[in-house]
Amino acid sequence: MKLMNARGTRDFGPEEKIVRQKIVDMLRKSFELYGFSPLETPIIERFDVLSAKYAGGAEIMKETFKFNDQGERELCLRYDLTVPLARFVGMNPKMKMPFKRYAIGRVFRDGPIKTGRYREFWQCDVDIIGSKSMLADAQCIQIAQKFFADIELDVNIEFNNRKLLDGMMESCGIPEEKRMDTILEVDKLRKTGIESVKNEMNKKGIEEDSVNKLMELISMQGTNAEKLDKVRSAMANQKLAEGLKEIEELLSYVDEKNIVLNLSLARGLSYYTGPVYEVFLKDKKLFSSSLAAGGRWDKMIGDFIGGREYPAVGISFGIEPITTVIGNNRKEEGIRTVTQLYVIPIQTTKKCIEIAEKTRTGGVNTDMDLMSRGVSKNLDYANKMGIPYVLIVGEEEIKQGKYKLKDMKSGDEKMVSVEEVCDMVK
Amino acid sequence: MKLMNARGTRDFGPEEKIVRQKIVDMLRKSFELYGFSPLETPIIERFDVLSAKYAGGAEIMKETFKFNDQGERELCLRYDLTVPLARFVGMNPKMKMPFKRYAIGRVFRDGPIKTGRYREFWQCDVDIIGSKSMLADAQCIQIAQKFFADIELDVNIEFNNRKLLDGMMESCGIPEEKRMDTILEVDKLRKTGIESVKNEMNKKGIEEDSVNKLMELISMQGTNAEKLDKVRSAMANQKLAEGLKEIEELLSYVDEKNIVLNLSLARGLSYYTGPVYEVFLKDKKLFSSSLAAGGRWDKMIGDFIGGREYPAVGISFGIEPITTVIGNNRKEEGIRTVTQLYVIPIQTTKKCIEIAEKTRTGGVNTDMDLMSRGVSKNLDYANKMGIPYVLIVGEEEIKQGKYKLKDMKSGDEKMVSVEEVCDMVK
Repeated sequence: MKLMNARGTRDFGPEEKIVRQKIVDMLRKSFELYGFSPLETPIIERFDVLSAKYAGGAEIMKETFKFNDQGERELCLRYDLTVPLARFVGMNPKMKMPFKRYAIGRVFRDGPIKTGRYREFWQCDVDIIGSKSMLADAQCIQIAQKFFADIELDVNIEFNNRKLLDGMMESCGIPEEKRMDTILEVDKLRKTGIESVKNEMNKKGIEEDSVNKLMELISMQGTNAEKLDKVRSAMANQKLAEGLKEIEELLSYVDEKNIVLNLSLARGLSYYTGPVYEVFLKDKKLFSSSLAAGGRWDKMIGDFIGGREYPAVGISFGIEPITTVIGNNRKEEGIRTVTQLYVIPIQTTKKCIEIAEKTRTGGVNTDMDLMSRGVSKNLDYANKMGIPYVLIVGEEEIKQGKYKLKDMKSGDEKMVSVEEVCDMVK
Repeated sequence: MKLMNARGTRDFGPEEKIVRQKIVDMLRKSFELYGFSPLETPIIERFDVLSAKYAGGAEIMKETFKFNDQGERELCLRYDLTVPLARFVGMNPKMKMPFKRYAIGRVFRDGPIKTGRYREFWQCDVDIIGSKSMLADAQCIQIAQKFFADIELDVNIEFNNRKLLDGMMESCGIPEEKRMDTILEVDKLRKTGIESVKNEMNKKGIEEDSVNKLMELISMQGTNAEKLDKVRSAMANQKLAEGLKEIEELLSYVDEKNIVLNLSLARGLSYYTGPVYEVFLKDKKLFSSSLAAGGRWDKMIGDFIGGREYPAVGISFGIEPITTVIGNNRKEEGIRTVTQLYVIPIQTTKKCIEIAEKTRTGGVNTDMDLMSRGVSKNLDYANKMGIPYVLIVGEEEIKQGKYKLKDMKSGDEKMVSVEEVCDMVK
């Protein structure tokens, strides 16, 4: 037996986990500031439930880890946080609406391994169930604005609207049955370029004239207002009017500063029904994948659980890309521990236990020598772990009630009382 | 297809999840104050690795959820956080010692369902790898003291020592090969009573004389010092001396206030090698199960990964029993949301979006009407959700720059500015 991880899974040692946890904590704080409450659903689900109706197509079920329990029940690991949310809503019909929940947890997909693709990874979703109002969509965008401002990432929130896309496709003469294919192709525009998309659409039997017309429209440049004006003057139909109305209402609720209408943004998932949005670094050369994405999905829950319609809107934050960008931005130099202060006794172990208890009560993450090492070995350990401060405690210091506090970065030393330690470390 | 959870799994709606999350946050804070850093290992592990050496016996492998990926690799879901820790230590041989980590996450066991037993549940562990010193054991006990003091639960930390138990069994004439059986029986003492334990031990062929002698010893009452004195005067051997020395050193490092030597405490797991401890409510009539438990396990990692010995000590906190006790103690009356302030517009939606953004910046979890409901329906919603404050914003209020803040519990209303809202709600 060789010690190794299962394929497509990873360990996160303290160095990485501390950064990830910070990001998750900030996401949680943002979600709660906007009145979203936590929901936890299990990792194990019944296979019949999860496979009952997946709006994204049967493909994902092939990537679902499936197994039986000892009672031969068919089970599986959840592949996202959305279908379990739909199940929860269906099982709690008396729930007050709107239901605003966030969920942060692992999901599992037995798919091919590529760079940045794993079989076990985290998702981080907020959703509002029960509101048809563009106020709900606006709130999802506002959370993204606030969170990315808080973590000091300069982003654009690109948005579009499925109804508008639908209306544009209609006016371009793309028949209804080919529109989902078109959306899937348009979604690739950013990655593969306009010529490749045109080729693919031709292959799918969409008329060249329609394709050209649509491509010209969705590649349009300008301010949000200019784009909307051009669309409005170029064509008119029922769907288009609905889309335009939603966009105008949505924009009236948000601060437009970093919100950019991108008429070629489609979002591949078939279940979106209205606004869709994706968050990117302003400088895409630094990092081109999206950091968060979402939209309105009014039909999926109703289709899944049957019965009435449940309007829904949500945004999902990518912990992996955000961690990557944060990691690129601020290379923290080898922080391997949350410890802020490390106490080194020189034959003063019991006194050091007391001191450490006091600094903990003062809110300082404190560790002390547990190996009965000498001072220099302890300093070496603190240094390698990236602990910022060390307190050296000898007999003489105890008599004076002042201890030697060493700043491990600058090397500065100072004689201080326990109270002063807390102030200085924090 | 009927919407339901997989057997032995549960959803935690906001009402429950908010309480659970509070407890987990406080545990995390306690762990970090003591210099423990987070480690995340995957939920999916290789079956060959997890089944290679389980010190607790092969039994647990029967309860392991097993499955294959599309490449026919044998995988499984982790059943605890300890074996993955051992794997991580083995795969990172250059790690600095001591390695102090905490892990909070779900584990899975395909076992029988009883009250309070689930197939998917949380574990919450801290462990120190690499230190043989009783200082490490003391630290685990101190974390428990601090955490339970912080959440205001009045607990005793009962402790014992495996070496002492071993020495006592030796002096009572229990042969080495029957000592693990004896430990497993002694561990049941609290639940089944002394007569039942004696019976079982007789059945296992342990001499009645030995059993009686041991039972008398471990049922002894008195202070910690009195018990230690009595053991010391009753018998002597190498193991006993080692155990006594460990106990004395351990006690010298901690505040003995709520630490109780219980000579009948055994802890069933075979991998413990020194101090063992279990945390109970002082008033066991209120709740008799342990809330946390741990001990020293010096052999397991070395046995598992081969090569050198890795001394280890840890304590595991039971989120389920702690949640139950907290729930029993403080019935929070229907808090279904983290929202602290709910803003109700009277034809002032855009102004309310602004106000809500301001109170969020002020640190108040703020929600607002997303359904275009009237005031009374909104008040009803806020009331049912358990939101403590509501802010009503009409045209007149905007002119004055003061809004009606309603305390939903007392019913009191007050005209306040946005800044005042933040102060009052917090």
